[in-house]
Parts: sequence; C-alpha cells; structure tokens
Amino acid sequence: MDKKVYLDISRGKPSKQQVDLSLKMMDVLSSSSNYIDDNGFDVRNYGELLGISEARELMGDILGLDKENVIVYGNSSLQIMYDQISRSYTHGVCGSTPWCKLPKVKWICLVPGYDRHFAICEHFGIEMISVELGKDGPDMDKIEELIKDPSVKGLWAVPKYSNPSGISYSDEVIKRLANLHPSASDFRIYYDNAYALHNIDEDEAILNIFDEAKKVGNEDIVYMFTSTSKISFPGGGIAALGASKKNIEDIQKQLRIQTIGFDKINQLRHVRYFRDLDGIKSHMEKHRAILKPKFDVVYSYLDSLGDLIEYSKPKGGYFVTIKVRGVAKEVVNRCLGLGLKLTEAGATHPYHNDSSNSYIRIAPTYLGLDELHQAMKIIVQAVKEETK
Amino acid sequence: MDKKVYLDISRGKPSKQQVDLSLKMMDVLSSSSNYIDDNGFDVRNYGELLGISEARELMGDILGLDKENVIVYGNSSLQIMYDQISRSYTHGVCGSTPWCKLPKVKWICLVPGYDRHFAICEHFGIEMISVELGKDGPDMDKIEELIKDPSVKGLWAVPKYSNPSGISYSDEVIKRLANLHPSASDFRIYYDNAYALHNIDEDEAILNIFDEAKKVGNEDIVYMFTSTSKISFPGGGIAALGASKKNIEDIQKQLRIQTIGFDKINQLRHVRYFRDLDGIKSHMEKHRAILKPKFDVVYSYLDSLGDLIEYSKPKGGYFVTIKVRGVAKEVVNRCLGLGLKLTEAGATHPYHNDSSNSYIRIAPTYLGLDELHQAMKIIVQAVKEETK
Repeated sequence: MDKKVYLDISRGKPSKQQVDLSLKMMDVLSSSSNYIDDNGFDVRNYGELLGISEARELMGDILGLDKENVIVYGNSSLQIMYDQISRSYTHGVCGSTPWCKLPKVKWICLVPGYDRHFAICEHFGIEMISVELGKDGPDMDKIEELIKDPSVKGLWAVPKYSNPSGISYSDEVIKRLANLHPSASDFRIYYDNAYALHNIDEDEAILNIFDEAKKVGNEDIVYMFTSTSKISFPGGGIAALGASKKNIEDIQKQLRIQTIGFDKINQLRHVRYFRDLDGIKSHMEKHRAILKPKFDVVYSYLDSLGDLIEYSKPKGGYFVTIKVRGVAKEVVNRCLGLGLKLTEAGATHPYHNDSSNSYIRIAPTYLGLDELHQAMKIIVQAVKEETK
Repeated sequence: MDKKVYLDISRGKPSKQQVDLSLKMMDVLSSSSNYIDDNGFDVRNYGELLGISEARELMGDILGLDKENVIVYGNSSLQIMYDQISRSYTHGVCGSTPWCKLPKVKWICLVPGYDRHFAICEHFGIEMISVELGKDGPDMDKIEELIKDPSVKGLWAVPKYSNPSGISYSDEVIKRLANLHPSASDFRIYYDNAYALHNIDEDEAILNIFDEAKKVGNEDIVYMFTSTSKISFPGGGIAALGASKKNIEDIQKQLRIQTIGFDKINQLRHVRYFRDLDGIKSHMEKHRAILKPKFDVVYSYLDSLGDLIEYSKPKGGYFVTIKVRGVAKEVVNRCLGLGLKLTEAGATHPYHNDSSNSYIRIAPTYLGLDELHQAMKIIVQAVKEETK
C-alpha cells in the first residue's frame, strides 16, 4: 500500500474522449435561444415540478414509458434512488407504514452487484439478503420465496449489462419479476436501467418490464431509473424515474414539499441536442467506437489467463467482472502494490462481504489504450502470482 | 371563486424581464470552453461531491463564509433544507438520536413566515410553535425560553428581507441567535438567507451570524442557505449550504451515499459569468432597477388605505405584507372574485392557521407595471369593502 498508485480502474468513469463527444451540446442554448417549452412555460423560471414535457418524453423513450409515467430530475439517478428509499423510510410507500416505524426492513441484493446500491441500504440499516445473479439474471426461485416475508421491501436490479457482471436479464426473468406478488404492498423493484443504450457489441435488447407488469395489472411493482450520466456528462446530465400513475402521484405529493423544481434549462439543453431516441442512439454509437477497443484489450489479456479465472464477456455496460477463486483480496492488493487501483475486493457484495473472496470488478473505460494495456498486464501478473 | 383569475401575485416569482438579465450567462460556456476547474478537475466528469472550488468560494462570499464551510448543490435551496430535516429524521444530527425515533419533535416558526418552510415541518409531523416576528426580528425572550425544551430541534429564520414581512434582523437579535444554547444538542437554526443581495432600497446589511457564533465557540448552531434562484434563473440556478466544519463533515458522510454529485457544469457557468461577489452585486442593481418601481406602486396604493391596514415598507426581498385586522380571508376571496389571485390567507402561519385572520402577502415582482396597477386597485377596493 506504500507504493504510489499510477493507474486507476476502480470506477465506471467515462474518458475525456467520451465526454468530449457531447461538447456540441454546450452550443445549443445561448442568449439568442428560445426558452419556452412545449407546454408554453419559460424553462428559466419556476414551474413544471415533474420536468419539462419534452424531457419527460425523451427520458420516457429511453425507459420505454409514456411521458406521464416519467419524472425528470437533476444530475444524479443515484440521488433519485436514495430519495425513494429515504421517503419510504420517513413516509412509507403509497400510504404504507413508514419503514422507520418497522422493527425490520430487508432487501434483496443480487450479487455481484453495485456497491453504491448496497451502501444506500446499509446507510438506512436495511438488512441485505444476497441472491446469486447468474448469466440470465437472478435466481428467481429464491426471490419468489424471499418475498413471502413481509419485511422484504425491495430489490436492486440492473437489468441490462448489469453492474458489474455485464449480464442482461432473460425474457423469462423479466416476466417473473413483473409478476412478483410480494407479501409487502410497499415492496418495489428498484430497476436501475443505467446502461439501457450502452452497447459495446450488438444491442442485447431486454423485455420492457413495465409493459409486462401492466399486462397483469402489477405495474406498481417497479420503479425504473435512468440517466444521461454516461450519455452526455457525468457532471451535468439529467436523470429520470419511471413508474405507474399511482406511484408517480405518491412521489409527487412529497416532491412539491421537497423542492421548487429541478434544473429545467439543462433538461431543455438535452432535448434540443439529442432531439429524440434515435439521436441518442446514434450518439451512443460514438461511445461504442471508443469503448469497444478497450473492452477487447481487457478480453485479450483475460483470455490469456485461461482457467485461472472465470468471466463472461459483456455486450455492453461499463464493467468486466472476473472470478479468481479465493484470492480476490490478494490480487487487488498485489495490483495496488504494482501501481494499479482496482475496485476494493468485496465491493460487489453487501457489507463488502464476498465470502468466496473471488469477485473482482474491472472498469476499463477511463484509461487510454496504452494505460489499459499496462493495467491489464499488472492484473495478469497479479492473478498468476496469487494463483500459483 | 367562479370568476376566471386574470392576475396572479401569489408567488415570489421574478418577471421575464428579470430572467432576461442573465441571458448572457447562456453564452459563457460553449464547445470551445475550458472545463477544468481551479482544482484541476474536468467539471463534466464525476468528482467534487461538495461542489467545485470556485463555486464554493462564490456562494461562500454571498453567505460570508470560507469555501471550506460551503457545499454547492443543484438548483433548489428548499431541497437542501428538506434534505437536512429528512436526514435529521432518519439519521440524527452529528450522532444524535434520529428524530423518527423520538416521541415528539418541535420547531420554532416565526410568524408571519414562509409557507414552504412550514410545509416541510408539517410533512415530517414536526409540531410547529409560532413566535411573533417583529420589526427587528423574532421575540428572542420567547425563543430563549422555548429552547429549554429538548424536543425543540430547530428554528426557521429568513434574516434579511424576511419572507413575507420584509424586515431584517437587528444586530442584537442576530447576536442572541448566535448565542443560543438549546437543551437539544441537535438543535439547529435554519438560516435561509434567500434575499442576501436582493435590495430594493439601500442595502440593509445584517450581522454575520456565523462569525458571531464562532466568537463564542457556538458555530455548530446554524445551517445557512442561499441560492441564485432570484439572481440568475429560478429554473436553472445553483444553491448552497454553509455550516461549521463539524456540520459539513456530518453532511458529507451522508452526501457520498446519496448522490454521485450535483451539476458542476452549471456551477462553473455561474462562476464564469458572475466572476465574484462584486459581479453579482452589480447584477443585482439591474434587478433592483426593475423591482423598485413595482414596490413603489404597491406602496402608493397601500398608503392610500391609511389606517385600514398596517404594513411596513421592506428595503428588499420579494414581498410586502399587510395586516387587515380580522378580514384577511375575506379580502383574499374578494380579490379572487375580482380576478386577482393572492397567496392564500393563513399561508404565513403554521398549519395555515392565522388565528388573527389578518395577514396578507403581496408578491409584486412577476407582473408588469400596468398589471400591477390593476392588481393594487383590486386590493384597495377589496380592503375598503371588507373593512366598511
């Protein structure tokens, strides 16, 4: 740990080259622009708590929802998720008992999963139950069993190019999620579709969970989240929540107490720049062109490790996860000693407790290709040494 | 209530002319700009949870604080206040018992006051205790008595050009606030300095409460809030919290769980446009030039009412409050019948309960001068008829 870190592949951060892709977005609004939105409101002034109409439509198109089912917020989708849990804790969900008044709240966490999701649960003292995430999604038998417990109130899901294993949920898994009937009426699937359009390879389309749930009158079961953090700018994007009419009304009740409104100028900027879903999709092709060679570099080194590791090659998203049986901490520490910072071992599991000590998350997006080669050489060396 | 409303002076909303004052801000960032902040970070990417250094400095200058004592958020300062109360409710303050675990939480509300402040308390089931706000600030004897009750956890204050009476706190009041020693260690003054630079007349400078508190080692007593909502854009400004090192650290612990960060591009845009406090102050002169004639119109009509009302002439802020003894609801309703929407009678008091039925808030900023004349004529007529 004494050695200075030179390379950092610990977080899913776009490279400078990627954020430069949206530079022209900074030109679409100027002092000569029209700031009146589709509903006739001046976006620079107060109003439109749920977001401007055209931004709700655009973010709805990403989520596969009508604009009435969408609220557009500020920069961070994580903040929306936190907010949903925080409100459930203080005020309940659609009239249920506030969770702070309950003796115990439990949550289903798919592993490997996203450390920031788990951190929110931990922050609220929510007991996390790990369920294995396979190649097609979570172990649904296990989930259907767990939700019989009325203290189980939610589930984190990253359905497409999951963070960090990169897998996408099969149609069957999404249908079963859409058909969940938990004991707790205030149970919600927190469906974080962060990588909806973030292909590296051919698009791995997933079923629309909201449509599936609606077919069986179960559309209140899911909150959907997405953002433009990895489309436009991590430091200046827009984020959205999608949900049923009943859920939106429940949220709106609090939102009008909580804020005078989010940044509507930035919402307008995004709509004027991308125009529509096709505009975003063609923009995402440019991200893909930058990212694909990086993931290919990662794969080439990992393939050289043969049976020393297990891993699958994601078709999108921001991560590659490898399993190094029983030596994850050791490999991560050895890499650090060699000048490479990886995500902390265990971060993929609730309470940072990967009892198998096997999962390592690789986030190859930020580094340039040359640096990435160096980083992967270090990983290869460390894995080889620790598995000798 | 049948009649269509033609004129609306119910909310403190800047006029189009005012938001146009900041139009050139939309030109300061473009595709050819430099996006590296003073600390060397690319503001477009992740990082800098507490805000970019130069924005912390600028907002600190408004609050009279060092940048280390400032966090810059997104668009809405109300949202920061909500967030502070929500976190106190779920996690306590600097290690205290979370308020949701307490049998009772009480709050001191100065009346007349800001309805959105009171709404947050009501949303959290916090019992509101009204204390009269005079011409120099609140009744400090009463406050010093009330804070002996350990269930009293906070106090709303709008120290300069108070919403809605427009008064500013005297040096003595601010010193006594800075010297409060409540029974509850988690008691905080929520010091909403929304109108810090919003003069109509000569600047009515107030004492720096943080400096006063620091002199006596009591700087943890206060959270300060401000925003550029009525400086740049209500729909795309930046907001900030100011507090002691200990409070900032307490907040930061949660913030890193809650969000990946606020919109730093908009923070940079504000700094590049205004440059410094002097830049904001000269910008505020332009607001004043638009607002002063409007307030003068209001005063001229109100003066014509003689003894039928009580009121004072604020030197800044966004509101004028009149007292019409015992007929506030009647006057507001009569105005509505005549085509003018005022803030609901009672909104100036907790639970919308103005037992004196006397306070009416007038928000003259949004209307043009001609419309304002019409609005004031309606008020004059309604007051005369209801006090006959």
